[in-house]
Amino acid sequence: MDLTEFVKLSLGRWRSQRSAHHLAFAHFEAVTSTIDIVSLAKDNPEVVNLCKSYQIDPQLATSPFRMSWEGESDWNEEELIKGTTVLVPIPDADNPTKGRLLRDQGYAETIPSVGKYHITEDSVFVLETEYDRAAAEERIWFATPNLRLRVSLIKTSAGSGVVTASFSSEIRSLKE
Amino acid sequence: MDLTEFVKLSLGRWRSQRSAHHLAFAHFEAVTSTIDIVSLAKDNPEVVNLCKSYQIDPQLATSPFRMSWEGESDWNEEELIKGTTVLVPIPDADNPTKGRLLRDQGYAETIPSVGKYHITEDSVFVLETEYDRAAAEERIWFATPNLRLRVSLIKTSAGSGVVTASFSSEIRSLKE
Repeated sequence: MDLTEFVKLSLGRWRSQRSAHHLAFAHFEAVTSTIDIVSLAKDNPEVVNLCKSYQIDPQLATSPFRMSWEGESDWNEEELIKGTTVLVPIPDADNPTKGRLLRDQGYAETIPSVGKYHITEDSVFVLETEYDRAAAEERIWFATPNLRLRVSLIKTSAGSGVVTASFSSEIRSLKE
Repeated sequence: MDLTEFVKLSLGRWRSQRSAHHLAFAHFEAVTSTIDIVSLAKDNPEVVNLCKSYQIDPQLATSPFRMSWEGESDWNEEELIKGTTVLVPIPDADNPTKGRLLRDQGYAETIPSVGKYHITEDSVFVLETEYDRAAAEERIWFATPNLRLRVSLIKTSAGSGVVTASFSSEIRSLKE
């Protein structure tokens, strides 16, 4: 599977159940949310600006998309978890299953980030991102075309210890 | 990674946090347990008997082991979840990363089962088991030598629909 195909399969609206395991104190957190993934044009100003901020030619962007989410956690049921981020894949010139992923809001820290991705022979999208004070690893794959699974790890910045391990089951509710 | 190495890394005592997502009704279940994985000798009577019940030469068994668990679920805090099973890998003659896994108690149904496993280039152990009324797929990998992750899917027997998706984070508490 290449990046274009992976993004295409991801487009649409998803109903997500996410469990976070906070490992040090064996705590469970449950988050229910709705996720929307929509494709963006290469000449979308947000895509172009994100590329420029990393001095990358916007023509290299492949299948850019926007991800938005809205949900709630059982840790604080009154707080609405809500956000949106633009993601721009930049495949390696010589390999359509590897590359960089730019985003205007990171997962471990809410600042722009650039991660490295690759897609395994098993069709798992693996993304590794280093932040100032943490590192994140995400593995995303499709159990069926309508069930997307995601395991996310938040690591210490040295990358040696895992602080939080999360699992999401995302069921398609609408096709884009 | 081959099967022998994978089993070796798995030996010991693990403290497990497991979240089950019951997809049809978006329910979360949280299970906390202790898992012990100990190696068994090839000539252990339970290993030999399990092989014989499948008409397999016990000499083909590689790294047989016993897995025991004890824990509790937030669905029913008064009920102790407890069990033990013998697992016997039978690698393919021509490929040490693929084979069959015999066990005397299955995951989706508590009857003997035989599953097919392979280990991906990414060092993920993937096990697929078909039962009479269900099918199971498990993916197990090491985030670090002391953190084992596991995603388990229970599917309808046709294999098309996923009923339950579970995620376990297993932290090593003792080396065997």
